Amino acid sequence: MGSQQKDVGILAVDIYFPRTCVDQEALEAHDGASKGKYTIGLGQDCMAFCTELEDVISMSLTVVTSLLKKYGVDPRLIGRLEVGSETVIDKSKSIKTWLMQIFEELGNTDIEGVDSTNACYGGTAALFNCVNWVESSSWDGRYGLVVCTDSAVYAEGPARPTGGAAAIAMLIGPNAPIAFESKLRGTHMAHVYDFYKPNLASEYPVVDGKLSQTCYLMALDSCYRRFCSKFEKLEGKQFSISDTAYFAFHSPYNKLVQKSFARLYFNDFLRNASSVGKDAMEKLEPFSSLSSDESYQNRDLEKVSQLVAKSLYDTKVQPSTLLPKQVGNMYTASLYAAFVSILHGKPSALRGKRVVMFSYGSGLSSTMFSFRLQDGQHPFSLSNIACVLNVSEKLDSRHIFSPEKFVETMKLMEHRYGAKDFVTCSDKSLLAPGTFYLTKVDSMYRRYYAQKVVDTDKCRTAVSHENGSLLNGH
Amino acid sequence: MGSQQKDVGILAVDIYFPRTCVDQEALEAHDGASKGKYTIGLGQDCMAFCTELEDVISMSLTVVTSLLKKYGVDPRLIGRLEVGSETVIDKSKSIKTWLMQIFEELGNTDIEGVDSTNACYGGTAALFNCVNWVESSSWDGRYGLVVCTDSAVYAEGPARPTGGAAAIAMLIGPNAPIAFESKLRGTHMAHVYDFYKPNLASEYPVVDGKLSQTCYLMALDSCYRRFCSKFEKLEGKQFSISDTAYFAFHSPYNKLVQKSFARLYFNDFLRNASSVGKDAMEKLEPFSSLSSDESYQNRDLEKVSQLVAKSLYDTKVQPSTLLPKQVGNMYTASLYAAFVSILHGKPSALRGKRVVMFSYGSGLSSTMFSFRLQDGQHPFSLSNIACVLNVSEKLDSRHIFSPEKFVETMKLMEHRYGAKDFVTCSDKSLLAPGTFYLTKVDSMYRRYYAQKVVDTDKCRTAVSHENGSLLNGH
Repeated sequence: MGSQQKDVGILAVDIYFPRTCVDQEALEAHDGASKGKYTIGLGQDCMAFCTELEDVISMSLTVVTSLLKKYGVDPRLIGRLEVGSETVIDKSKSIKTWLMQIFEELGNTDIEGVDSTNACYGGTAALFNCVNWVESSSWDGRYGLVVCTDSAVYAEGPARPTGGAAAIAMLIGPNAPIAFESKLRGTHMAHVYDFYKPNLASEYPVVDGKLSQTCYLMALDSCYRRFCSKFEKLEGKQFSISDTAYFAFHSPYNKLVQKSFARLYFNDFLRNASSVGKDAMEKLEPFSSLSSDESYQNRDLEKVSQLVAKSLYDTKVQPSTLLPKQVGNMYTASLYAAFVSILHGKPSALRGKRVVMFSYGSGLSSTMFSFRLQDGQHPFSLSNIACVLNVSEKLDSRHIFSPEKFVETMKLMEHRYGAKDFVTCSDKSLLAPGTFYLTKVDSMYRRYYAQKVVDTDKCRTAVSHENGSLLNGH
Repeated sequence: MGSQQKDVGILAVDIYFPRTCVDQEALEAHDGASKGKYTIGLGQDCMAFCTELEDVISMSLTVVTSLLKKYGVDPRLIGRLEVGSETVIDKSKSIKTWLMQIFEELGNTDIEGVDSTNACYGGTAALFNCVNWVESSSWDGRYGLVVCTDSAVYAEGPARPTGGAAAIAMLIGPNAPIAFESKLRGTHMAHVYDFYKPNLASEYPVVDGKLSQTCYLMALDSCYRRFCSKFEKLEGKQFSISDTAYFAFHSPYNKLVQKSFARLYFNDFLRNASSVGKDAMEKLEPFSSLSSDESYQNRDLEKVSQLVAKSLYDTKVQPSTLLPKQVGNMYTASLYAAFVSILHGKPSALRGKRVVMFSYGSGLSSTMFSFRLQDGQHPFSLSNIACVLNVSEKLDSRHIFSPEKFVETMKLMEHRYGAKDFVTCSDKSLLAPGTFYLTKVDSMYRRYYAQKVVDTDKCRTAVSHENGSLLNGH
């Protein structure tokens, strides 16, 4: 029999992204691209990347350790841990098993969950799974923990500036300040080859950029229709953009987010022209008879709808764009980095507000869903979450690499992908205290990690292996 | 708020394995291994494998299409579909998205779920996720569908005879004839390198056979302790082997299943010596003071415990060993192939019986859980499930390849793994009607599948693309 948990959702969040990054304006100049191609054309400011010291495993170890410590959660209280990622280091062994090291040393090996995979959607799948577990009859009263971790890298060429890297950890349980509205969920899944990774020896994807953008917008339309239809069944009235305070979109690059919001605005206009106001109605009218297919390709519609949606974009979407613009595409973590950008801004003003989320993973999987925000009880309160996230300080303490040094790092990483029998460099100066890093990969491909010593004046450590290698399980 | 669904579990099952197989006795002779090394040492009879026409995607398409048709389930009634697999064809695009083709043509794209990954445990993770969904507040009243699909292949050497291939589909919902006892669940997860796939360009794993066996038995002990402790809390009495009619184990090779059951028997003895009977008690007494570590390595204990457990093995375990011995290691599908072997035997005698399941995936993840069996309502009844599975006919209609032809096929498959721009052979004569097969992979790595024409005298087809290529989504 199912249990009756109330307000199941996200109790706590932390984010980690590498301090190493490259400025998009400098990169577009270095690449010989036209001025503004990356900064305005893509809408991106900066891009984080992993050096040879970091990878999706080390970032996950860092963010999980940090979350447990900062919210004072005993690792023995975690009953489920799952990971969403599309960055494959091993095709069989889940990233989750590497994270078990944090829990094993305290004797907690009773932790369900593995890795979920479908491009950038894996984190959303993991989140849904974890929430369902808390609502299921097999829930044992402990917390769930969801980790989204990815390193997005592209071969030299037009897609390269759409990279990024980050890991996010979310603690799941009932009575959450960030509660799921579980009946509002619109899903669209299909078989397409818009972005995929069939070249197993390479970290780089095969991308059809134009197809991927169209697939994204078609999926958005389909999810929005289903989301609206469920809202209407539940609330007995039509849903429109005005029914939510914020939107957070999966963000491969900011320009697509601008287009997406304009697309939702156009959807509202098509369903109920009067909902968008007289001026917008007149401007959009010429496009009302376009077929669905035509509308995805129509540049005038794209421009006009972005223009008329601009002021609503500024209030409802812009607050979510900080981290995706500064850190880049974080794949599974991207949507949740957009969401925490909203929290970072003004937690006190968020009480009672709805946030509509759109998750997209190529291939393709997509869902639109929503959260209802409430204050919550310390340490699981919106204000404490914003404090722990500490987004401004994390952004300010980054190290901007020259494009040349970025390209050089990418070359080394290409060489290292899938490799064995190497030791990483000894200079850890750019890592923040508490950061986990890769020390070596042995001749059997076994990976060894250590943690940079935590500044003990500032905080206590929850794990005991400072500057020592973690066990390697054999 | 969580819903209150009763007896959530498996409503329907189907299994598919390639008709192509090799005889283990012939293989051990061909390999120059000592007589009985594969058949008695490993306990295996036969091994299925994919030729260039089949892979984990085609096997999934085959088994899902077959299940929907044979149980008369409208594809529009599926609300969740998830896949467990450790056979990576694409590192980003989930196998689930390929399966969406079956549903898209009927307009159903509203299907949650992606792929779950951790070695042989991914199918269990997918199953738990799907059951939790039915019990969650986001359940929309439709069926869940879980697919376990894998092709287990090894480099030439001692591990090669432990391969296999299969796909299993399970329909999930309330009021199931195979219902979860959701409060009885013992999980053990840890970070180990017993079996993993870090060589991304190769389909073959890195295996430490001895470590993997010890990890398996340690995980079994840990899960059994937790399972027993939950049973005792719930039922107020000690659990022992006698409290279940059957056991099904993840089965890399049958010998390990024999050892595993003996290990549980030894556990029962250690917890309550009198529970095993006087003769066994006397025989096991000399080992009672061994440390846990010593007990995993003690050959005498292994022999003696197998001997004293033999008669119980024959009643409680042997019925589950048919398919794992005949088809080989099916990775994520292995445990569920063991389970359906029990159903196949004598469905009418199973009413009210408990089956204890042990799922293990290297790396490692493991859970012991249990089902309670009841008749069920047609078409979701134990007897109809046994009829649909049609195990005997499937086994009888196989084509036994010579070891030479098997080795030759493996060589071609090595070459084909991760490759692009090729067409498969045109001879489909060995495929059963209704089987999906790979026709080609184009220069962009896009994969094309077709279905061998279904014998329309025997059954109706649920999908309409007989002998035609499926759409490729763009």
